[in-house]
Amino acid sequence: MSPDALAASIRAGLRQVPDYPEPGVLFRDITPLLADAKAFGSVIQAFAGFFDGQVDVVAGIEARGFLLAAPLAAVLGTGVLAVRKAGKLPPPVHQQRYDLEYGSAELEVSGVGIRSGQRVALLDDVLATGGTARAAAQLLERIGARVEGIAVLLELAELGGRGNLTDWPVHALLTD
Amino acid sequence: MSPDALAASIRAGLRQVPDYPEPGVLFRDITPLLADAKAFGSVIQAFAGFFDGQVDVVAGIEARGFLLAAPLAAVLGTGVLAVRKAGKLPPPVHQQRYDLEYGSAELEVSGVGIRSGQRVALLDDVLATGGTARAAAQLLERIGARVEGIAVLLELAELGGRGNLTDWPVHALLTD
Repeated sequence: MSPDALAASIRAGLRQVPDYPEPGVLFRDITPLLADAKAFGSVIQAFAGFFDGQVDVVAGIEARGFLLAAPLAAVLGTGVLAVRKAGKLPPPVHQQRYDLEYGSAELEVSGVGIRSGQRVALLDDVLATGGTARAAAQLLERIGARVEGIAVLLELAELGGRGNLTDWPVHALLTD
Repeated sequence: MSPDALAASIRAGLRQVPDYPEPGVLFRDITPLLADAKAFGSVIQAFAGFFDGQVDVVAGIEARGFLLAAPLAAVLGTGVLAVRKAGKLPPPVHQQRYDLEYGSAELEVSGVGIRSGQRVALLDDVLATGGTARAAAQLLERIGARVEGIAVLLELAELGGRGNLTDWPVHALLTD
């Protein structure tokens, strides 16, 4: 599938939900895309094209990132790593704090899921401000992994997330 | 890989964490299994053997179930559906309440992710009492889907979960 055809297929599979999770926010729901076997398969194949033979593990950001990272790992023949919100993983964990618009949050990865020197593809569904992806990539590199790239279904270009991720290649299948 | 070799490989990939998430509970951490490309791939292939050609969609129970359901969907060439805890999905949603030891909880699936008549494989990492899997299967059937089977990595037989799931075939790759 050509990049343009894939982008059209992704656009058709995204449902826009106004005022969710709060007033003024336009939420992009990936449920219809995931439900469409052909579109879902094409997305995973496109991600595979970015990373085939170049990574040892695929990391997904909780929770929708899991739905993209794990199938990519299966297709690439690598392992998969969960990047989770704080408090979800048993010890030992590595933690990374990052700033939100109001306050801060933490991401965690297990201390037993990744080894120093491993090459990682980092996956999420949507790239907005890039704060979460940046924290995840920093966390992985702090424990000795090498982030080969960050890939998302949809990049919301006006939020400028790519500008927060200049240390890594960023791949977006669709840009809005 | 033979069922016995697969079970041994899964056993080697599970890490036992005593007193997590609370005193007296022995938590089974699947992180090392997911990190092991060969074991992870064998698990997904084994799940595929249960459902190949027999389902239209693979549903995973939040959040670890996503890490198994989505790659199975990619291998089978189907779509994937997230069964989520309450409050995580944009409207419209279908909800199912179920009893816990103390109190109750709710599971939700999107109203736009699955159609009546679709055949579903339901995936989770561990089968304990079966309460969550039962609620998920009931929810899917209430909205007109047909649950062809429930598959898990690990069944904790002494907790009797299978007895709560007698309406559906239950597949466990390892029983403890």
